[in-house]
Amino acid sequence: MAHLSEKKLDSKLIFDGRILRVELDTVELEDGTHATRELVRHPGGVCVLAVTEQEEILLVRQLRYPYQEVTAEIPAGKLEYGEDPEACGRRELLEECGCTPDSFTYLGKVYPTPAYTSEVIRMYLAKGLHFSSQSLDAGEFLDVERVPFEEALRRVMHDEIPDSKSQIAILRYAAMRSKQV
Amino acid sequence: MAHLSEKKLDSKLIFDGRILRVELDTVELEDGTHATRELVRHPGGVCVLAVTEQEEILLVRQLRYPYQEVTAEIPAGKLEYGEDPEACGRRELLEECGCTPDSFTYLGKVYPTPAYTSEVIRMYLAKGLHFSSQSLDAGEFLDVERVPFEEALRRVMHDEIPDSKSQIAILRYAAMRSKQV
Repeated sequence: MAHLSEKKLDSKLIFDGRILRVELDTVELEDGTHATRELVRHPGGVCVLAVTEQEEILLVRQLRYPYQEVTAEIPAGKLEYGEDPEACGRRELLEECGCTPDSFTYLGKVYPTPAYTSEVIRMYLAKGLHFSSQSLDAGEFLDVERVPFEEALRRVMHDEIPDSKSQIAILRYAAMRSKQV
Repeated sequence: MAHLSEKKLDSKLIFDGRILRVELDTVELEDGTHATRELVRHPGGVCVLAVTEQEEILLVRQLRYPYQEVTAEIPAGKLEYGEDPEACGRRELLEECGCTPDSFTYLGKVYPTPAYTSEVIRMYLAKGLHFSSQSLDAGEFLDVERVPFEEALRRVMHDEIPDSKSQIAILRYAAMRSKQV
């Protein structure tokens, strides 16, 4: 076996849910020993850093059930299997924030927790925003706020925006801005 | 029901693994309708941005099974239930990189993917590094590299370090440095 490689010996489907698919695999390691891998498959997600002309960003407040906590995050959503990520990002921005952008550019990707999930989150930067009204899915409840970018960055640095994709999009945009200065 | 709240009606244990615990909950939403929540419980993790006197950082290269890809990430590990996060971070830095720090300070927290996991990752900044030899767990295979900080930041901005916790720790440190200038 090559260094830093593993060979799948067996895969057992544990759960095939509406969003998650959980598998328990058995693998051979590079020293010939065996190990198990607990694996969550996810269709992937998209998030959008939407920046107004006044350099405010849009944040969405919603209950995050696993933490029993209302968090502030940038607008985001789950890909349908086979959906184009950019189309998904534009759709989520419109549904959650009632917002259509003039420009929509790729900002980067995130592996949220690579030890056990296959999820890939793609980030976009939206500018030139036109606002109409929210059109949430049934069973979706969230509030939208506009926050000056410097305040959003302060919140990231003070652990008030713990969500990974939101921190990364805000911090990358801060790095891009500081290079322009 | 209060706005942005959900009431748990039922919880079914799907899988109780070595690392993950998967639950399928039924909840009542604020409009009285019912929904399911697919939930992955995880004991939490710790990661360490270790910075040398030459402003290099330590990166760990290892296979990430869900992506079938060798990634570069900052040193990290899973908390044992009840373990002190700082002690866990010091232990992982020693085991993976053979490294003992003079200073070890809290850098922030991350919710990697809050829609479905309860995992919290705590980040630390390690400085004043003393090197001895790696002491990996059985079945753990990884390589360590030292990378100048500016090069690590360039890699983050070019999608070469997709791991969420590594991006956040590197970008927060960049933001802290740029404010010192």
